Amino acid sequence: MDNIDTLKVASKSNPKKVAGAIANLLPENQPVYLQAIGAGAVNQTIKAIAIARGFVAPSGINLVCIPAFSEVEINGKQRTAIKFIVKSK
Amino acid sequence: MDNIDTLKVASKSNPKKVAGAIANLLPENQPVYLQAIGAGAVNQTIKAIAIARGFVAPSGINLVCIPAFSEVEINGKQRTAIKFIVKSK
Repeated sequence: MDNIDTLKVASKSNPKKVAGAIANLLPENQPVYLQAIGAGAVNQTIKAIAIARGFVAPSGINLVCIPAFSEVEINGKQRTAIKFIVKSK
Repeated sequence: MDNIDTLKVASKSNPKKVAGAIANLLPENQPVYLQAIGAGAVNQTIKAIAIARGFVAPSGINLVCIPAFSEVEINGKQRTAIKFIVKSK
């Protein structure tokens, strides 16, 4: 599944900005998809989700995330990405 | 909150073993707490949760996780850990 709305998070992504993007995408009551490759990117993604929880909590939204493995091709090479599905519970 | 049942995950932890521990702790229908410090440990934790989802899915359990920041003291130094609350939805 390669959702066009998937946010690709890198190890140098700013977690607060990614959190803002999650909070902005969420009100349509659809899950937000994020993708990270490598430990640094996964770490930034998790920080972003934790921060986003704080952004949306005052609106009564309780964010949860579902991590899953995802095979992606980058420059012809097969890589294992982590896909995060973020949604309100 | 320093739950005695908190699973501490390190960058060298085996995700499959951590996943087994999650799956074993979960049936009591209580959340499972995990703690990771550093990108490598966070990465292993996320892999473990993704694997654990597969372990419990056949029982009709849909695992979700909630990441949060947590201040911990290690050898007298303040560190920011990521705490993961894993529960069935």
